[in-house]
Formats: sequence, structure tokens, C-alpha cells
Amino acid sequence: MDLTVYLAGEIHSDWRDKIQSLAAEKDLPLTFVSPQTNHDLSDDIGENILGEQPNKYYRDDAASGINNLRTQVLMNKADVVIALFGEEYKQWNTAMDATTAINNGKPLILVRPEKLIHPLKEISEKANVVTSSVEQAVEVLAYIYK
Amino acid sequence: MDLTVYLAGEIHSDWRDKIQSLAAEKDLPLTFVSPQTNHDLSDDIGENILGEQPNKYYRDDAASGINNLRTQVLMNKADVVIALFGEEYKQWNTAMDATTAINNGKPLILVRPEKLIHPLKEISEKANVVTSSVEQAVEVLAYIYK
Amino acid sequence: MDLTVYLAGEIHSDWRDKIQSLAAEKDLPLTFVSPQTNHDLSDDIGENILGEQPNKYYRDDAASGINNLRTQVLMNKADVVIALFGEEYKQWNTAMDATTAINNGKPLILVRPEKLIHPLKEISEKANVVTSSVEQAVEVLAYIYK
Amino acid sequence: MDLTVYLAGEIHSDWRDKIQSLAAEKDLPLTFVSPQTNHDLSDDIGENILGEQPNKYYRDDAASGINNLRTQVLMNKADVVIALFGEEYKQWNTAMDATTAINNGKPLILVRPEKLIHPLKEISEKANVVTSSVEQAVEVLAYIYK
Amino acid sequence: MDLTVYLAGEIHSDWRDKIQSLAAEKDLPLTFVSPQTNHDLSDDIGENILGEQPNKYYRDDAASGINNLRTQVLMNKADVVIALFGEEYKQWNTAMDATTAINNGKPLILVRPEKLIHPLKEISEKANVVTSSVEQAVEVLAYIYK
Amino acid sequence: MDLTVYLAGEIHSDWRDKIQSLAAEKDLPLTFVSPQTNHDLSDDIGENILGEQPNKYYRDDAASGINNLRTQVLMNKADVVIALFGEEYKQWNTAMDATTAINNGKPLILVRPEKLIHPLKEISEKANVVTSSVEQAVEVLAYIYK
Amino acid sequence: MDLTVYLAGEIHSDWRDKIQSLAAEKDLPLTFVSPQTNHDLSDDIGENILGEQPNKYYRDDAASGINNLRTQVLMNKADVVIALFGEEYKQWNTAMDATTAINNGKPLILVRPEKLIHPLKEISEKANVVTSSVEQAVEVLAYIYK
Amino acid sequence: MDLTVYLAGEIHSDWRDKIQSLAAEKDLPLTFVSPQTNHDLSDDIGENILGEQPNKYYRDDAASGINNLRTQVLMNKADVVIALFGEEYKQWNTAMDATTAINNGKPLILVRPEKLIHPLKEISEKANVVTSSVEQAVEVLAYIYK
Repeated sequence: MDLTVYLAGEIHSDWRDKIQSLAAEKDLPLTFVSPQTNHDLSDDIGENILGEQPNKYYRDDAASGINNLRTQVLMNKADVVIALFGEEYKQWNTAMDATTAINNGKPLILVRPEKLIHPLKEISEKANVVTSSVEQAVEVLAYIYK
Repeated sequence: MDLTVYLAGEIHSDWRDKIQSLAAEKDLPLTFVSPQTNHDLSDDIGENILGEQPNKYYRDDAASGINNLRTQVLMNKADVVIALFGEEYKQWNTAMDATTAINNGKPLILVRPEKLIHPLKEISEKANVVTSSVEQAVEVLAYIYK
Repeated sequence: MDLTVYLAGEIHSDWRDKIQSLAAEKDLPLTFVSPQTNHDLSDDIGENILGEQPNKYYRDDAASGINNLRTQVLMNKADVVIALFGEEYKQWNTAMDATTAINNGKPLILVRPEKLIHPLKEISEKANVVTSSVEQAVEVLAYIYK
Repeated sequence: MDLTVYLAGEIHSDWRDKIQSLAAEKDLPLTFVSPQTNHDLSDDIGENILGEQPNKYYRDDAASGINNLRTQVLMNKADVVIALFGEEYKQWNTAMDATTAINNGKPLILVRPEKLIHPLKEISEKANVVTSSVEQAVEVLAYIYK
Repeated sequence: MDLTVYLAGEIHSDWRDKIQSLAAEKDLPLTFVSPQTNHDLSDDIGENILGEQPNKYYRDDAASGINNLRTQVLMNKADVVIALFGEEYKQWNTAMDATTAINNGKPLILVRPEKLIHPLKEISEKANVVTSSVEQAVEVLAYIYK
Repeated sequence: MDLTVYLAGEIHSDWRDKIQSLAAEKDLPLTFVSPQTNHDLSDDIGENILGEQPNKYYRDDAASGINNLRTQVLMNKADVVIALFGEEYKQWNTAMDATTAINNGKPLILVRPEKLIHPLKEISEKANVVTSSVEQAVEVLAYIYK
Repeated sequence: MDLTVYLAGEIHSDWRDKIQSLAAEKDLPLTFVSPQTNHDLSDDIGENILGEQPNKYYRDDAASGINNLRTQVLMNKADVVIALFGEEYKQWNTAMDATTAINNGKPLILVRPEKLIHPLKEISEKANVVTSSVEQAVEVLAYIYK
Repeated sequence: MDLTVYLAGEIHSDWRDKIQSLAAEKDLPLTFVSPQTNHDLSDDIGENILGEQPNKYYRDDAASGINNLRTQVLMNKADVVIALFGEEYKQWNTAMDATTAINNGKPLILVRPEKLIHPLKEISEKANVVTSSVEQAVEVLAYIYK
């Protein structure tokens, strides 16, 4: 049974590559999709496509409309969502993607370092599974096939 | 990841061909569907199939039932909707298709000339992305795969 | 049984007053709500609240966000929707409100002059009832209580 | 028309009082509800009711289950949601409440200081209205009644 | 706890009066609504409001649009649906109302004479309760309050 | 674009064969599914599988549970529904299937002889298209591909 | 804010009375509803209303249809559900009511003795809050108003 | 037409194997999925992946989160659900899976020994078909293809 996994969250580390190679090692029949992981492209895409905007607010607004469309298309295709929170940044779009998974009945694995337990407690309580490493998250995916 | 794109809107210009050839140039794995673009056929289809109707109102009613069925089947299959408004005509079925995309959680790209900004402002605000050219719309589609 | 009726559509004539006084004459226990009918206020509300915007596009975008919020709140409360199309203007937000009523299972009465039969044919076919006068629309409302 | 407004977000400043007194000045027929604003109570409630938990993770898990139940009951009753992000903290439950409003078709006003424009851009783009002060948020509420 | 009961079905006998007086005897806090029970009015309502139609098909179409709007408004308000099938007529709108109750999660009591067991077997199997008299149907309503 | 068509309705004539051979002539990429068309099997299936039942009512109840499961599985897969009413029998399960298509957003073509116009008027008004022959219904299907 | 609480579960002890008097002591504005708590009536109601059935299976089937209708009406009205599992019996309808609360987005408090932790683990994990006494459950209800 | 069947229920007997070999004998194009049937693995999976938990309650909670994720992924893919209740154990997760099938519009076949008729009566009444053997359940699956 082929499944599609949406990898929401931090884009400044290589955790998605790790998940994909761990899944490949285990021969799991998974397709991975994710938000735009090229940070600059993600910030510039509004002006790249729609042209220069009058100020930073509108520059961001233009980019986020296109990023949100991209996310919505891919999330609609997902059977499972993994949301990883890193130690830095506000990561509110990660929180938004995780919540959308919960609200739309898509099973959610939340990955976070121990020091984020407290601020993430309400979202964590609604996730199906909370892990502190991507290795654990892949073990959860592997368990679907056991 | 194959996606189906519904191309709502104006049927008196060749914008759909442009979108399809731009997408082909970029090798995007997209299937395009659209409302009936043969205007005469779209107006005549009620009487073509159901026979002559008593007056123009019922002639239109018969045609639009069949056009709406066709749209509903194809829209149900769509992953993304592009709605293009041209400078002429009332284009209320374009507005209806765009709104149905919004209401059903299908990501929407709205394409319109600058002079329609004001009358389209409420629908535009609900679209994911608003562009002023089909080239820009295709760049948004391409971004899904980046 | 008290019902709430959302009156979508044209804001440059006094049709809402007519409907309300006809309903009052018939003692129908109806509450009427509607989009902002003060055209200038509706256009200015974005800058009134959020301050001056960088250009006309963003001025419109700011206003329409607030207008759409207002509409969504009131439409959510409505049991029936009447959408009136007049002879002028593009009236795409009327088309959007009518379509939202259809998609959300809210019964829809569409009112339009005969000369708009053809361009409105697809929306009309999905409305529950199409009338050519507000008097007829009120008779439909009255029939709910007969 | 009485409406219920859920006030999501920061609990370390008096913005909810401000909103309520501004709404009272304007005689708006609004009922306000909110997450638990007593921070200590919100953190302790799990152990207060269920007894001591084995460690901090489970202490947080117990509290958040009860907080999430409370939020879900009150959010289900809300006609409009205001989500305010302050300058400190991660505020991921604010992001979760805002996203839940979006996903459930509840109109959302997002309030944030200018310096949070960039990290909030994806959620902002999906909100109906984004303001930078609670005064503006109340003006949006007042506009529903104009 | 006040409840609204929609009484779908046959309009040529006085079964609705019986149900209402039995419920009154038992002091059940129920409000009853129903489709138009004046058969002539129900057939004429299209032409009464919209004027003469070109033929019998369109005369029926005009009437049924208005009858369906009326039903949709009242059914949306119902907490329970009773659908009574009599021995005569095709009663397909009764079947439609019963099915709509099933599809929308509104509990359904189906009342039918024994000789209709076989042709009604598929709808009956989906109803919550099937009775052969209106007295039994009222006992089911009364049981809600026991 | 492959589509699945559910053929609800009369099982005592060969209309399904006609539709399938007309569709084959036109090379339409359609898969057809339908309720059980072997009338005896459809009536006997409850006792065939579950053993003898205590009386005719329970015999019918057992059969209809299994028939309804079969219909629900196949209807869930359908992109379009055709419901044909013949001149005889009550055909209430046809009415149920047609109504379920309407309520679940599956486009519906209703086929009926002219003499059933009046009793079918409420369901007809909610169908997308009403035809009086299967040839016309196939032309509507063919139009989806034009 | 008045709320309705559905009290699912065991009917052989007086836990519902306890909850109601604890809630009254705290002046909580709650209305309580529950499944039929008279066990004999609940078993007999099918034959009481519909007459003698051919055997025990059908006697049970008749009763459960009426019990399920009653539950569905009252559960539809509930803002919160409390499901209590006792030490005896299979209590599968309690499990059904608890699951229906989860599936319909109604917040769920599950009450169970410690010795049922293991067999209830999957349902418990999906409940909002799990307590081991009704006193704790009432404290959760009280917390909504704090 | 390929279908996916979720086999909920008892994991201490070989009924799933029986169903699969009976289906293979009949050449039914079915894919079978099920909850984790290795009981020890199902109990240990939380600690296997997430490490030792502080006590038995949290050990169970960790396991059930992962089991529930697995079930949700597979159930989302299912076209039909079979739920088998055996004579032992509480089997509340079987009841939860069966109820979720009912609530999500997935056709349900319930299999149980005669002695469980009474305690299962409410869930049984909501199932599409109730059988007392897996052979009968497979006959129901086979009937979909007849």
C-alpha cells in the first residue's frame, strides 16, 4: 500500500533527507512531499512571479499566498503528516500545517526536542504520536506496514 | 505527482492553449480540464439533446443543466482551479466556478486584467493567488513541483 | 418559526427596503441581514480601519477582507438567501454569495430582470427559485409559512 | 444579532479587557470567551484534577488535555475568532486556535505587532483581516453591525 | 428540551393532526413542521407566483422548485423526521425527504402499512425505526423524554 | 479521464445493456456499476446468506441490509449517477439512490417516461438533467468528453 | 453560557445523580441528558411499542433501533460528552457513544476505574480527558467556566 | 473493481486468514488490511519506539497512540469494514473501529457469535449486515461482484 507523507516543519536542517534515506533503507513504499525548503525561494516567490510589491508586508503576503497554495495541493494528497519543530524560529506555519492535519483527519506525527515540550503541549496532545527524533518517526511509519 | 487542473473562465480567447503549451514546455505532469469552450455548442446543447424548448428561458435552462453536470464531474476531479476573467461579458459562471473551488477547499489561482481589480476584489481576496497573466499562473503551477 | 434571510446583491436601489416592508405587511417573522449597502463605506472600510494602503489594489484588498468577514458572519446565520442581480455592474460578489449559499445547503431565491436570463443561466439553474421581481421573492418567503 | 467572539492568544497582557471595554462603549451585543487566562491555573490544572503526574512531560500532557477540551467547547460556540500574537513566547496554541478557526469556517481577525509580519505571513494570508491593534479589531467587529 | 419534528409524507389523510393531538395529550414539547399539505396549492404555487408556464412540465418544475425550497428550510430546522407512506400514489417526494433525513444524520421514523413492507424494504432498513401506525410513532417520540 | 457511472433504477428491462452498448459505440471510457439486477437474487440474498428468517418482514429486512451495503460500496465509487424510473412499481429504492446522489454531490441524470413527470417533479427539480430516453442520457455522458 | 452534557455509560449505579448534584452545588449552568437508564424499559421498548417479535434477536433489534434514535437526538444536542465505564458488562454501546462523540467533534471526558486502563487504552487515547472518578469529571466541567 | 477491506476485531484466532483464503478461492479482487494482530507487538510498540514509560498507564498510552495512527491510516483507505467480536475480552477497540466505520459512511459487516447478540444490539442495529460466521461475511463481499 503506497502512502504519501507530508513533511511539515523546519527547513534549515537536513531532517527530510534523513527520513527519506531511513525509509529507503527499510523499503517503505512512501512518497514524500513537503513545503518549499529553499528558504530564499520561499521568501522571494511572490515578487519572482508577481513583480515587485510596494513594501515588505505585501512582499510577504504575495509569497505566502503562493506558498499556501502549494501546501494545500500537497497536503490534500497526504495520507500521513510529520511535523518537525526545531529549536529556533517561531515556526508558526509548522503549527498551522500540524493543526490542519489534525482538523482534516490526517494522522499526525509530531517531532520536537525535549526543550519544546512545554510550549508545544496543546498541539502535542492532539497529535497521534509525539517523538523526539526523526528515527522514531520513521519507526512509526514502518509500523504501519508490520 | 500528477495533478488535474480545471481551467474556468473566458471561452473566446486561446488562453487555455497558452497555458497548456507553457506547461508542456516545462514538462509539468498536469491534466487540464475545462468547461465547454465551444460557445455555440454550450448554448445549443440543451435543445440538441432534449429537443426544442418552449422559449429562450427554457432553452437556456436546458443547456445550463447539462453544462453544470459536466462542470461538476470535472471540478470534482480537479486538484487546482485556475479562473480567468476577461474584459468583456458578465462571466457569472466563471465567478460561480471560482467560488465553488474556494468553498470546496480546491486551491484557486485567479487571473484578471488590471482594470477588473475593483469589481473582482471580494473574490480575489478569497483566491489563493491573483495574477494578471497566464504566464504567471503557469509559474505558480510550476512552483508546486520545485 | 423565526428565520434569518440574507439579502445579497445590488446596493444602488432600494429593493431591500421593499422586501422588508412587504414582509412586514404580511407579518412574516423574518430577520433580514445584508452585505454593507453603503457603497462608499464598503470601499473605504479597509483604509478607514487599517490606514492608507500603498495603491488602489491594496486599498481594495484591505476593504474586501473586512467585507468578506462581515458577509461570512451574517451568511453563517442565514436560513435563506435572496440574491438580486441588477442591470448594471459586474456584481461578482453577488455571484459569489449566491454560489456560497448553493454550496452550503442554504436555499436560494435568485431575482433578476429578464434581460439577464442568458448570462445568469448556470447560476439560475442551481438556484431553488428564480423570480423577476422582489414581490415574487417575498411571496416565496410567505409560502414557507402557509 | 448577538454574536460570540473567541479571543485566542497571549495571556500576559490585558488586551482582552481592552477589547471588552471598547465593545461595551460601542454597545456591541457580543459575548466574549477565551482560553484559560490564568497562566498558573492553566499549567496546574492537570495535576489539580488528576493528581501528581510522573514527570514534567506528563504534567503538561494532563494539563493540555483539559485546556484543549475547554477550548473546543468554547470555540464550537464562537461566531468570530480574534487571535492576538504578542512579541514574546512561541504561542503555538494561538497558532493552533487561529488555524482551527480557518479550517472550521469561523471568520478570523489576526492581531500582531509589525515586527511579527514575516514569521506570521502564512497564517496572516489565510486570516480574513490582519490588524496591528486591538482597537482596529474592535472596529472590524463594529462594522458587522453597520 | 424542545424538539422540532418534520412530518414528511402523505397529504390526503389527517395523520398529521392525529400525531399533533396525541403529542399534545402527552404534553410533549414538540414543534411540528411539514411539506405543503394543501395539494392544490402545492401544485399551483409555481404559476401562482411566477405566472403561467408554457406547458405542464414547466408548470410542475416551477411548483417543485418552490416546494423544495420550503422543504429545505424546514428540514434544516428538524431534529427528528417522521415519514409516512400511504397505500396510494408514488410518493417519491416522501422517499426523497426520508432519504435526505438519513443522509443528513437526522433520526428517521418511517410509518407504513404492512402491505408496503416489500417495496419499502431498502429505505426501511436505513430508517431508525419502522412502525405501522402513527400511534406507535408518537410513542417513539415520547420515549425520547422518558 | 475514466469515470464510473452508477445505473440506479428499474431492473426488469434491458436499459442498462442499451446504455453500455451506446457508450461502447462512442468509445466513452466509462465503467458501469449498478444495484443487483437479478430480482430473485436480490430478494433471496438475505436468506441465502443468513438462513431462513422468521417471517416475510425479516426476510426482506435481511435482504435489504445486504443490498444496501452493496449499493453503498458502489455508489461511493461513482462519479455520475443515472436513475431510470419505469412505468410500473413503486421504485422507492431508485428514489433513495437518486436522492443520495443529490445529497452527496454526485451529478445525477434522471430518466423517466413523460407520464411520470408529475409524481417525480420534486426529485426531477433537484436532478442535474432530466431526460425521457436512455439515448439522451448517453448523449449527456458523451458531452462530458466533448 | 448554558451547555448540554450527554452522560453515556453504565446504567446500574447512581453516578449520573452524583454528577448532577455536584454540578448543582457548583451552580454550573448545565443540562444533562443520557441514554435510557431504566434497564428493563430499555430492553422492552421494542416490543412495548412494536408488539411481540419472533425471537430474542428481533426483540433486541427492535429495542435497539428505538434506543439508537433516542441517543442520536440527544447526542446531536450535546456540547460535551462524559462516558463512564464500570467494572462489569461489555458496555459496547458506551464505547459506541464515546466514539461517536470523538468522530463528531464533541469533546469527550472518559471515566473508568484503574483496572480498565489496558482494555480501554485505544479509546482513552482519543478522549480529551480520562479521569478515574466522577468528581474529577465534574471538576473538568467546572473548569470550562473558570 | 478493486476494493480494500479493513478487518477490525479479535486478534487471537485465525479468522483473518480464513477470510483471505475464502476470498482467494472466489477470486475476489480484494486487498485486506487490519489492526496490528501481533498482540505483544501491539502492547510493546510504544516503549519499543519511544523508550520506557513511567508506569503502565503511560506505557499503554504510548502504545495506543501509535496503534491509533496505524488504524486511522488504513481505515481511511478502506471501502468496506468487517468487525469481528469474539467471546472473550472487552474488545472496545473493535467497537471503536466499527463505530468509526458507521460514522464515516464506510459499509460495515459485523460478525459475532449468537451469545453476544444482546450486548452488541445497539452497534448491530447500525451495522449494514450482521453475520454469525466469517463464511457469511465473505459471501456478502462476493455479492458485491455478482
